[in-house]
Amino acid sequence: MMIIMKANATPQQVEAVIAQVKSAGLNVHLSQGVEATIIGAIGETHNIPAERFEGLEGVDTVQRITQPYKLASRQFHPENTILPIDGFTVGGDEIAIIAGPCSVESRSQIIETAIAVKEAGASALRGGVFKPRTSPYSFQGLGEDGLELLAEAREVTGLPIVVEIMSQVQLDVMVKYVDVLQVGARNMQNFNLLRVIGESRTAVLLKRGLSATIEELLMSAEYILAGGNQRVMLCERGIRTFETATRNTTDINAIPVLKNLTHLPVILDPSHSTGLADYVPAIARAAVAAGADGLIVEVHPDPAKAVSDGKQSLRPEKFAEMVKQVGQIAQIMGRRLAVAQGEYTKQGWA
Amino acid sequence: MMIIMKANATPQQVEAVIAQVKSAGLNVHLSQGVEATIIGAIGETHNIPAERFEGLEGVDTVQRITQPYKLASRQFHPENTILPIDGFTVGGDEIAIIAGPCSVESRSQIIETAIAVKEAGASALRGGVFKPRTSPYSFQGLGEDGLELLAEAREVTGLPIVVEIMSQVQLDVMVKYVDVLQVGARNMQNFNLLRVIGESRTAVLLKRGLSATIEELLMSAEYILAGGNQRVMLCERGIRTFETATRNTTDINAIPVLKNLTHLPVILDPSHSTGLADYVPAIARAAVAAGADGLIVEVHPDPAKAVSDGKQSLRPEKFAEMVKQVGQIAQIMGRRLAVAQGEYTKQGWA
Amino acid sequence: MMIIMKANATPQQVEAVIAQVKSAGLNVHLSQGVEATIIGAIGETHNIPAERFEGLEGVDTVQRITQPYKLASRQFHPENTILPIDGFTVGGDEIAIIAGPCSVESRSQIIETAIAVKEAGASALRGGVFKPRTSPYSFQGLGEDGLELLAEAREVTGLPIVVEIMSQVQLDVMVKYVDVLQVGARNMQNFNLLRVIGESRTAVLLKRGLSATIEELLMSAEYILAGGNQRVMLCERGIRTFETATRNTTDINAIPVLKNLTHLPVILDPSHSTGLADYVPAIARAAVAAGADGLIVEVHPDPAKAVSDGKQSLRPEKFAEMVKQVGQIAQIMGRRLAVAQGEYTKQGWA
Amino acid sequence: MMIIMKANATPQQVEAVIAQVKSAGLNVHLSQGVEATIIGAIGETHNIPAERFEGLEGVDTVQRITQPYKLASRQFHPENTILPIDGFTVGGDEIAIIAGPCSVESRSQIIETAIAVKEAGASALRGGVFKPRTSPYSFQGLGEDGLELLAEAREVTGLPIVVEIMSQVQLDVMVKYVDVLQVGARNMQNFNLLRVIGESRTAVLLKRGLSATIEELLMSAEYILAGGNQRVMLCERGIRTFETATRNTTDINAIPVLKNLTHLPVILDPSHSTGLADYVPAIARAAVAAGADGLIVEVHPDPAKAVSDGKQSLRPEKFAEMVKQVGQIAQIMGRRLAVAQGEYTKQGWA
Repeated sequence: MMIIMKANATPQQVEAVIAQVKSAGLNVHLSQGVEATIIGAIGETHNIPAERFEGLEGVDTVQRITQPYKLASRQFHPENTILPIDGFTVGGDEIAIIAGPCSVESRSQIIETAIAVKEAGASALRGGVFKPRTSPYSFQGLGEDGLELLAEAREVTGLPIVVEIMSQVQLDVMVKYVDVLQVGARNMQNFNLLRVIGESRTAVLLKRGLSATIEELLMSAEYILAGGNQRVMLCERGIRTFETATRNTTDINAIPVLKNLTHLPVILDPSHSTGLADYVPAIARAAVAAGADGLIVEVHPDPAKAVSDGKQSLRPEKFAEMVKQVGQIAQIMGRRLAVAQGEYTKQGWA
Repeated sequence: MMIIMKANATPQQVEAVIAQVKSAGLNVHLSQGVEATIIGAIGETHNIPAERFEGLEGVDTVQRITQPYKLASRQFHPENTILPIDGFTVGGDEIAIIAGPCSVESRSQIIETAIAVKEAGASALRGGVFKPRTSPYSFQGLGEDGLELLAEAREVTGLPIVVEIMSQVQLDVMVKYVDVLQVGARNMQNFNLLRVIGESRTAVLLKRGLSATIEELLMSAEYILAGGNQRVMLCERGIRTFETATRNTTDINAIPVLKNLTHLPVILDPSHSTGLADYVPAIARAAVAAGADGLIVEVHPDPAKAVSDGKQSLRPEKFAEMVKQVGQIAQIMGRRLAVAQGEYTKQGWA
Repeated sequence: MMIIMKANATPQQVEAVIAQVKSAGLNVHLSQGVEATIIGAIGETHNIPAERFEGLEGVDTVQRITQPYKLASRQFHPENTILPIDGFTVGGDEIAIIAGPCSVESRSQIIETAIAVKEAGASALRGGVFKPRTSPYSFQGLGEDGLELLAEAREVTGLPIVVEIMSQVQLDVMVKYVDVLQVGARNMQNFNLLRVIGESRTAVLLKRGLSATIEELLMSAEYILAGGNQRVMLCERGIRTFETATRNTTDINAIPVLKNLTHLPVILDPSHSTGLADYVPAIARAAVAAGADGLIVEVHPDPAKAVSDGKQSLRPEKFAEMVKQVGQIAQIMGRRLAVAQGEYTKQGWA
Repeated sequence: MMIIMKANATPQQVEAVIAQVKSAGLNVHLSQGVEATIIGAIGETHNIPAERFEGLEGVDTVQRITQPYKLASRQFHPENTILPIDGFTVGGDEIAIIAGPCSVESRSQIIETAIAVKEAGASALRGGVFKPRTSPYSFQGLGEDGLELLAEAREVTGLPIVVEIMSQVQLDVMVKYVDVLQVGARNMQNFNLLRVIGESRTAVLLKRGLSATIEELLMSAEYILAGGNQRVMLCERGIRTFETATRNTTDINAIPVLKNLTHLPVILDPSHSTGLADYVPAIARAAVAAGADGLIVEVHPDPAKAVSDGKQSLRPEKFAEMVKQVGQIAQIMGRRLAVAQGEYTKQGWA
């Protein structure tokens, strides 16, 4: 960390900063230039917030040299993390496609969708049962009943299930049912939630907040990793900008940036990042071409009747087309689509 | 709500939308123009999400006419809500100034600060004990011990206390101690938390999220109001934009916009909205000149030694100057500074 | 256009709005609902600004149904515009790759670069001679001398040349030399410049402004089209957001959105949209996978010595690799790389 | 400037950077830490772009210590610039209020407005004659005829006139008529225009671009100052963010930040920064309370009939109220409203 003093900082102020640096267990490298005095703080700085020095008198700015996260950093873990999920992996040669409805609505809806996405080539099934809704008057999800239905859909299709957790009090029931815990954009900085998930050993899909920087996403991953749970994948789902033609702005740059900064798998959610079903296949192709390790996509058998997110949900046949295109792009990237190993017993359910 | 059909929508699609509108308990007003067919959905629309119709085939866009919130709306509650807080009020003629450190650090730190802000003219004391920190390696707060210290500071100064709650599991301990529950920016859409707070009867200071729209802030207030807790004030604390000269961008427009849309009190946090102590007094004056009902400001006896937010904390003497200036602006606005009614027993504590 | 009246609008106000609509040459379709009175303004509305009605008393909001542009709209011109540029086309089956240095610096620099990008598979050569620089102290370009050098580079390689125009007073000299006039992001709403370019018949590459919406980009294209110049292609080059990990945020959504809204060709500039050479190939691939009609990429023989934009310039060998990858993606998309028809006389120049 | 090398930079790369720093006429201060090697570049760095070093091999980031502008910086010019404008000044104790219609529409409209704003207490008259319009189909202004009408309005009221210039080719005609040249938000980085204005000696009101940073605004001012024209005032007019409740987001922070960074006067435009007349007085008060040196406000005798910006234009009586409130705030700030010295001959015109 470099602490740049103001042009008019006094020698006493410089001394006081040096004392603080030392008291933080760091070594000092002093550089007194013509323009400015710079105090290098050297050592294990990743766990020392810059604000520790920013408020000191005479300090102009504090500039980090090393990243403020360590466990998530590729610097300390150069090899890709390859995350096993029920028979396939994320982060290696396979491209995972997680698909399903925004909300679990009924037994027939979730099982029909599960079968449809399985047949189209999905690797896992998504479905929401606790729903974060902007309005208190909107449908809030089926709760544990929905988890039962998802478990049945897994039984039928062999697809592992990915479900959003909204609060630390839901953890116990969630880990009984789900293969992957999803942390939604609005909870990316719900630190209490991140901490309890860090203590579990269930795989996690951590979504980037609407206006979170890439660094903040990695700091949130660090919370989970620091708790001992190494099974984390990251998800770009669009950021909030001034553009209103789409629901969010897909930050496609985040794909190569994250692949550079971290060893964790990185996937993209083209449904939320565009908000419009017509644009989902183009952005899904772009994500894989940019190096993403997978996709999470909303699919509904009858989007017009979806209780939520119908506008951005693909019909199963459009989803099947998309999977085909994505598979071709994956091949050019030297990769292949992931296939769940669970048994597919379609006939059993009706 | 107006549902605008695509230019090439078929009569069958129009019929299907009309059926959906009716099934939502709304009446239909059909307008078949040359440019487009428009279906007016009339009735109690505030609790029906636009997405219910957006995904239907042939629909171009859905435009709300009435607001998606009702309890928070000035339309249904034209008079200002005047919120009593331990002897003073927020939302009427009084301007509340809540001040104190980012984090409670020690007994002497919080009690000295409480005395200093009391003497400078503050109406209430703030102090964090559960801290939402970007990094898992940063100081996370003193927890319940901090609440004990705040209670003692209240004892000494007579100032009511405002403390941030981060998780629903903290509610029971919090309501034992605090006068006002603060919901931080990162939790503005933690709907589980909003719901349990809605069931309590403790006053709430609800901060706007970093990238939340004004409408979303009001929807979050609606969650609390819908639970039966009417004691809500809103807080603008800066939004995230491209500008990096300040930590956030103070959305000063939000003050008159919120005062227009809602009857709830609206305050501003110039410490977070600028991130730099030097700019806090100017923005505090601006807030009251724009019509804010109060301020929440970070003050620390020795910002250089603050464990968090030192850069944006005012020294007590600078805060005292700020209170004087704000008082003068308040007078021009036909208002006065609020004074807590608790007894001030400074001598007792040491 | 729909004019939504406020809930408390008087009949006189409604009448006054109706009179204004009629005086604008439009027909009126009145819809008096329970929630609100809506006045439909029907006819040739694309050239009537919404503000004509927004300021009227009693008006709540004005909602457009048809787009505010016409010549650029796919609605009125469903077929793709296929733009011939010196032997190849943009907007059809061919993917154009425009490459070259940010600034023309010297004869050897531009000719060497031209040869390198030609050999790597570029379809056209870019190079700046009038440079829009944030600082008055930065290199401002070689001016007409630079145009002479570009002309020589075209002679040697057969590549058409693409050059940025900054001011209407440069038009005469520019059209003598260049094949495509580039309008930079900072000039996207320099309406005087757009108008004179509209009167020329030289092809135009119109870049999206840093914070321009997609609709504003199309309105700027409309300025050029309205002047009679139909030879326009659009360019996404990244927008300004809160994220600082990259220079700009590539709005990849803009590719399918623009292809949906307009018949004009759409290309992407991954050099400016990322700002870092390492990320350019990933975003170039993503663009073509998302449906872009081409790319414009900064290439420099020795980025470390570039007078501008060295950080985001590819070395020729990295560019050659990128072209190969892009060619494979193009094939999957049913397309092929464009090849300029000019004669390649490499040997002649030294 | 500090050049921070990558952790794995080779000694050869460090040497190459040092050579570049020296060739830029700067001295080197080398600091080889454990974390990173840092090369301090010392000397006249304000006119050397960071990009000169950013593209060099082995370089991680380049951090400026001194600002990239000099003439605009308060560091080199600690005293406020006090700009005389026809009898009053901007930047000292006086608060200038520039008011008038968005567009000059007719003789009676502009002269009536001029009289109304004069009587309400305005210090200067604004009015557009060359209009930057998003749509080619919108009213583009009266041109030189409008300038004649403005000159007549000045004759009648004694108010100096402020008019927007859109292109360098308009300079000659503009300087014949106007007291202050306004550079609009869309032209803030029209560097050709800034350069010719720098060569004139007419006062300039430079508006911040929609998505320009504060630093970029100061760099644009530097263009004008570097040309020799010292008569520059800056104007915050709202920035583009995700919030849609108002037309723009008033960056009120920019007022104290600019007053800190530069000696140039700083005013605010609450009409554009909110876009809605109802919110203009609150933001005008806030601006002066935050330390602004003046305001520029849109006023129209009949906003409903304005050809542009009617929605954000104040009626004269609302403007008069606003001036009174602003005057009271000014007094608290130790300032007073500016009064033009030109003779007021209201009776003469009709």
